[in-house]
Amino acid sequence: MRIVEVYDAFQDDLGAVEDRLELLLRSESPLLTEAGRHLLDAGGKRLRPLLVLIAGRFGDGGAEAAEALVRAAAAVELIHMATLVHDDIVDRSDLRRGRETVRARWDDQVAVYAGDFLLARALSELAAFSDPAVDRALARTVHEMSRGEVEQQGDLFRPDVTMLRYFRRIRRKTALLIEFSVFLGARIAGTPEAVVGRLRRYAFYTGMAFQVTDDLLDFTGTPEVLGKPSGSDLAQGNVTLPAIFTLSEGDPAVRSALRAALEGRKTEAEREALLEGIGRSGAFERTHAVAERFVCRAKAVLQGLSAYPAARYLEALVAFIEKRTF
Amino acid sequence: MRIVEVYDAFQDDLGAVEDRLELLLRSESPLLTEAGRHLLDAGGKRLRPLLVLIAGRFGDGGAEAAEALVRAAAAVELIHMATLVHDDIVDRSDLRRGRETVRARWDDQVAVYAGDFLLARALSELAAFSDPAVDRALARTVHEMSRGEVEQQGDLFRPDVTMLRYFRRIRRKTALLIEFSVFLGARIAGTPEAVVGRLRRYAFYTGMAFQVTDDLLDFTGTPEVLGKPSGSDLAQGNVTLPAIFTLSEGDPAVRSALRAALEGRKTEAEREALLEGIGRSGAFERTHAVAERFVCRAKAVLQGLSAYPAARYLEALVAFIEKRTF
Repeated sequence: MRIVEVYDAFQDDLGAVEDRLELLLRSESPLLTEAGRHLLDAGGKRLRPLLVLIAGRFGDGGAEAAEALVRAAAAVELIHMATLVHDDIVDRSDLRRGRETVRARWDDQVAVYAGDFLLARALSELAAFSDPAVDRALARTVHEMSRGEVEQQGDLFRPDVTMLRYFRRIRRKTALLIEFSVFLGARIAGTPEAVVGRLRRYAFYTGMAFQVTDDLLDFTGTPEVLGKPSGSDLAQGNVTLPAIFTLSEGDPAVRSALRAALEGRKTEAEREALLEGIGRSGAFERTHAVAERFVCRAKAVLQGLSAYPAARYLEALVAFIEKRTF
Repeated sequence: MRIVEVYDAFQDDLGAVEDRLELLLRSESPLLTEAGRHLLDAGGKRLRPLLVLIAGRFGDGGAEAAEALVRAAAAVELIHMATLVHDDIVDRSDLRRGRETVRARWDDQVAVYAGDFLLARALSELAAFSDPAVDRALARTVHEMSRGEVEQQGDLFRPDVTMLRYFRRIRRKTALLIEFSVFLGARIAGTPEAVVGRLRRYAFYTGMAFQVTDDLLDFTGTPEVLGKPSGSDLAQGNVTLPAIFTLSEGDPAVRSALRAALEGRKTEAEREALLEGIGRSGAFERTHAVAERFVCRAKAVLQGLSAYPAARYLEALVAFIEKRTF
């Protein structure tokens, strides 16, 4: 099954999620409604809502669960949006997905309260489920995500970031919300505990693979595909896996050029030469191999779910992440 | 009973709340820990924790509830701190309680993730109670607070803000978190529903009185007492009750001077003359009368709780708010 077929299979529900998002983003404030519109129009893969919906097929919640799943899927996307809007302030990013960020289009002030509003709206939606297990998982996820945000700031421009530290950070920044999405969908559909546990592990590995690939694409993607300049992470001082491999195992010249770049002693042309040097150093292949390892683990978890027809969607999804170039 | 006696009666628990706050504000990030320390040292009345603790005396939770109340009290103060840190970004405020704000001491970027972290920490603490009623009330409160933050921005520099709009905004910005504090304490202590309802109403009126008084003191307090220049709200375009009264009922000269000030056409000296004009217009007395009305309603609600010894703390608290000058 190809990824487009997965999206096709959930077309109606994903359409309902968009409608729900539009409703949730409407506010008494015209400016905030406009900012919401702006975020919605920027699109995105809606990976998290899709995972809520797919996970919802592992239980037998019936028609009643269907509407709840759409609501939950929209809420999870709101959390994701909230973190992006605040991250863009913290990272001083002006472009995302080829569009101006909220802070660039308006200002940091608007982005602060827009992000607060998005998160608050999501909390309010999810509290309506009145399920303490959901509330606890949500609080833990939001807490860990904010720790990830903090850690990323502390690690900026540091050449001594270890792979372990990097994994911990992307777990917090990405994998846990993806895991929460799957948990939420499975829970709403009344999925048995053991299956929920497997689904969570699948989602965790998939989320890790997703972020490692994302960090690789930041180096290897073209600006047209990325919607932002390539090498953005490095320029912002964000030391991701390709940089970590280069720093620990690259050839001495590239290694010291990268250190110098992190200390800010590089011109634009030197930075471009550096990106090429990192490419030649084998760091991209090594990074890809790490992503493969997470993909492989995710697939292994799926073996145990093969009795469920919906597992084929998850297979297609992780296969897409394995191959994705955007 | 005087307010100092109330604080004395809860001295041990409030001390435990400070210890708990210190623990919660510690983070793996040295910078964030320092920012937390900075916020903690700035002090504050700890009104919300105090209300959690007092409300906890209306049930019979026993020793087990005592520790839970301290945890809940600290969590509520964290929510309050989180909103202050983000509000200061949105309002571009450099001073609060006579100290530099987080954004002034560090920058907006740090203030964004510090605020996110504080809120996330609080959510995580409160989710530990595994009480869907608490989670729902919390989500509603955070959601309404963010709507209040948004509304305040939309109303900036607008001379047509009505009293009703003002009440709605301060309800969201202040009264609901105070109401939530009391709800939380009462709930943890296992207080009967009917009493919880009364306590909430008391807290709501007290919260409204508190904010109206706060907005009055912004005009009438000295910079030494306020820890920031007097007339700050007006300078920031925040149209509060004294300004609303002046705009609707002040004498024509003061009224048009105020309109001009909101359009930014005033020098510093003209602003000072304006503050005096507002003082002479009777707006302060009218604002005080509104605060009195809320105080009176809070006291009326307390009549129905006179069988409870802890009600005397609530009486002292609202009496303090009635008279407070700082």
